[in-house]
Amino acid sequence: MAMAPTPGSETTKAGEIDETHDPALRSWVESANGHAAFPIQNLPLGVFSVGGGAPRGGIAIGDAILDLAALPALGLLEGEALAAAQAADAPALNAMLALGAGPRRALRRAVSRLLASDSPARAALEPLLVQMAEARLHLPAHPGDYTDFYVGIHHATTVGSLFRPDNPLLPNYKHVPIGYHGRASTVRPSGTEVVRPVGQTKAPDAASPSFGPVGRLDYELELGVWIGTGNALGSPIPIREALDHVAGLTLLNDWSARDVQAWEYQPLGPFLAKNFLTTVSPWLVTMEALAPFRRAQPPRPEGDPRPLPYLWDEADQAGGSFALTLEVHLASAAMRAQGTAPLRLSQGDAQAMYWTVAQMVTHHASNGCAMLTGDLLGTGTLSGPRPGTEGSLMEITRNGRLPLDLPGGETRTFLEDGDELTLSGRFEAEGFQPIGFGPCSGIVAPARA
Amino acid sequence: MAMAPTPGSETTKAGEIDETHDPALRSWVESANGHAAFPIQNLPLGVFSVGGGAPRGGIAIGDAILDLAALPALGLLEGEALAAAQAADAPALNAMLALGAGPRRALRRAVSRLLASDSPARAALEPLLVQMAEARLHLPAHPGDYTDFYVGIHHATTVGSLFRPDNPLLPNYKHVPIGYHGRASTVRPSGTEVVRPVGQTKAPDAASPSFGPVGRLDYELELGVWIGTGNALGSPIPIREALDHVAGLTLLNDWSARDVQAWEYQPLGPFLAKNFLTTVSPWLVTMEALAPFRRAQPPRPEGDPRPLPYLWDEADQAGGSFALTLEVHLASAAMRAQGTAPLRLSQGDAQAMYWTVAQMVTHHASNGCAMLTGDLLGTGTLSGPRPGTEGSLMEITRNGRLPLDLPGGETRTFLEDGDELTLSGRFEAEGFQPIGFGPCSGIVAPARA
Repeated sequence: MAMAPTPGSETTKAGEIDETHDPALRSWVESANGHAAFPIQNLPLGVFSVGGGAPRGGIAIGDAILDLAALPALGLLEGEALAAAQAADAPALNAMLALGAGPRRALRRAVSRLLASDSPARAALEPLLVQMAEARLHLPAHPGDYTDFYVGIHHATTVGSLFRPDNPLLPNYKHVPIGYHGRASTVRPSGTEVVRPVGQTKAPDAASPSFGPVGRLDYELELGVWIGTGNALGSPIPIREALDHVAGLTLLNDWSARDVQAWEYQPLGPFLAKNFLTTVSPWLVTMEALAPFRRAQPPRPEGDPRPLPYLWDEADQAGGSFALTLEVHLASAAMRAQGTAPLRLSQGDAQAMYWTVAQMVTHHASNGCAMLTGDLLGTGTLSGPRPGTEGSLMEITRNGRLPLDLPGGETRTFLEDGDELTLSGRFEAEGFQPIGFGPCSGIVAPARA
Repeated sequence: MAMAPTPGSETTKAGEIDETHDPALRSWVESANGHAAFPIQNLPLGVFSVGGGAPRGGIAIGDAILDLAALPALGLLEGEALAAAQAADAPALNAMLALGAGPRRALRRAVSRLLASDSPARAALEPLLVQMAEARLHLPAHPGDYTDFYVGIHHATTVGSLFRPDNPLLPNYKHVPIGYHGRASTVRPSGTEVVRPVGQTKAPDAASPSFGPVGRLDYELELGVWIGTGNALGSPIPIREALDHVAGLTLLNDWSARDVQAWEYQPLGPFLAKNFLTTVSPWLVTMEALAPFRRAQPPRPEGDPRPLPYLWDEADQAGGSFALTLEVHLASAAMRAQGTAPLRLSQGDAQAMYWTVAQMVTHHASNGCAMLTGDLLGTGTLSGPRPGTEGSLMEITRNGRLPLDLPGGETRTFLEDGDELTLSGRFEAEGFQPIGFGPCSGIVAPARA
């Protein structure tokens, strides 16, 4: 996918490398230089507020946020970049994303120049910087609909084996990008308290169900895919065009109550087990920023069926995966009190995705289903094939049978009150500056009386 | 539930009978008197537009619509009723519904007086009437989230027996109001063309799946429940308060592609089989209008478990069902061309609901899930226990094995292109004027190339 830089072109496509990706590029915002997540090569989109002020669009740069809503007044932007910044003066970036990829890319290129070390606009821009530590971060866009897929094949196999030892992967899995609708009203940004839900559960040996705080609270490590531009009802999205509809990615934690899930999910799928909260990292890393990190989708194992033509595109296969490392860390209340470093629960990568983002989008719209700007798709849990790469506690502890040791003598089968769970991700590729998402965290709070 | 009339009280509750329900009440809008759906005792809420005008709120009265957005300027309203009418000047009634039940009820009482035969305001109001035949009807509110339940126990049993002859009703059914998330972006008002979707299917005897127009297109007869006021994330809705959160009901057709459903739904539930279109009747019949038709929920059969306390409320059981007759009619293209009357496919009632609307709402929010104004809940298919009361073709034709004869020599196993399918419903109770929803219709169009 990597193509030669095309400096000066405002029509650079999402998959193309241009001067905004130059690893030698540095910013006059000093904290950006060498920043683990937000160097000048990233420039992710988000929504922030300060004090009691109105939420508005911003771009993360190092430890700071560039206030997009205030940018147009400086007279430094024109054309599509100006239109994009103007549309970002809103409590959600839906209007900006709805402008399409052209204005989004034009803004990236303009902001890259403005924040570069040699920018003559530094003095004008400095007052528009907000320290991230002083800001409250919101969702980047309002999700009209949220859909969760199941493309992590190792997760699907492991979980399937817990419930169906003889038949872990169902016959449709390698033909259909399996997904289901989730709850949009409970998607929240990183840092939102994870109140332990109450729910109806039935122990396998109990005569009847009971209702109370759930016992098997779990996380799921996923990527979130944000739709930039949608499609009209009845008009499918061809796979060659699918990524044109995607604005970018975040991390996504699909918090799950396993005991509720086991009792409620037949025959129509997960419902209350998962709709009490879904946490995403607040900074949307654009498809433009990801361009250097796209990789060939791993070839399907020998003997796997070739997908139907509507799901198959050679260009998608050539760039459908990402050079991305994903990590999960846990810090209990005791560990935090003692100053113990969080325990890394797992480290995985995007190779776990049996289906690409483009295949997810195209399948979703293949029956004419309307995707809307700001819609959110989850990939499903991205577990690797080996111990140490699992994307949920259910997999790590084999559904609670093998407790996990924490530093300081604690053990865990599922999440306890006070636990802080953090997802993180890092894109790395030879010859490019690494970028990240920033954290996707939540602390578990006791159930409310 | 029926209580003595409390004339003059603006604080009448949803379950109470007042002078707006007086069967002797007549309107100066002549078409309302004796109207099957929209006599002056109904006054349902909706959104309409005329020509290229902006959509805005209205109230159906006979064959006409009272333009709510134009009403405040007449100076005939005050207080909460005025606030409700002002909030109805919008392309969706979310802002009006968010005001809560008080303003909604105050507006009903005020409009009832204004439209009554003896109203001195007739001359002022006549210019605000729009003929329904000249208007385009929209969704009454923007649904942020859409959830479909499965409370029709006869449907669940029959469908279960098709897939699991030995175990038709799963063990959780009588404990959990089973539901799943649907797609909000594809909810449309009656009259929307039902384009036959394409999709991935696999015949039981086929070696591999194929992709093309679906063969087993079906309807599902449901009620739609519109949320009036929501709850904060983390704050459940006690069952005694559940109906305070409900604005009212519509008819709902959960169009379904059975061949897609059979192949895709394991293990996470229905997805593309149902998210291509959901049609609702455009007029929201308020809980106030329904008050005379609330009936005791049928007692649970001997031996059925008593629901857990969070789902149980004696007052809800006393008034959780409705004196409602539901009908489904089919007219093929040939029948319509020949002037043949539509064939009634089934006639059922709300007794099929194993769980009440209040139980659905309370269960949904029991884990703290946030319900929002305008959210839509489907009941699931409301089939009765006997032949002639089925709520889907899958049930009528036993999954296509027993073709149905249409007038003129045609037969049907599932819907064919050109078929017009119409749901209707009528509330009837001794001593009260019957009311209805108006039609919920769609004509099947061929799949797009």
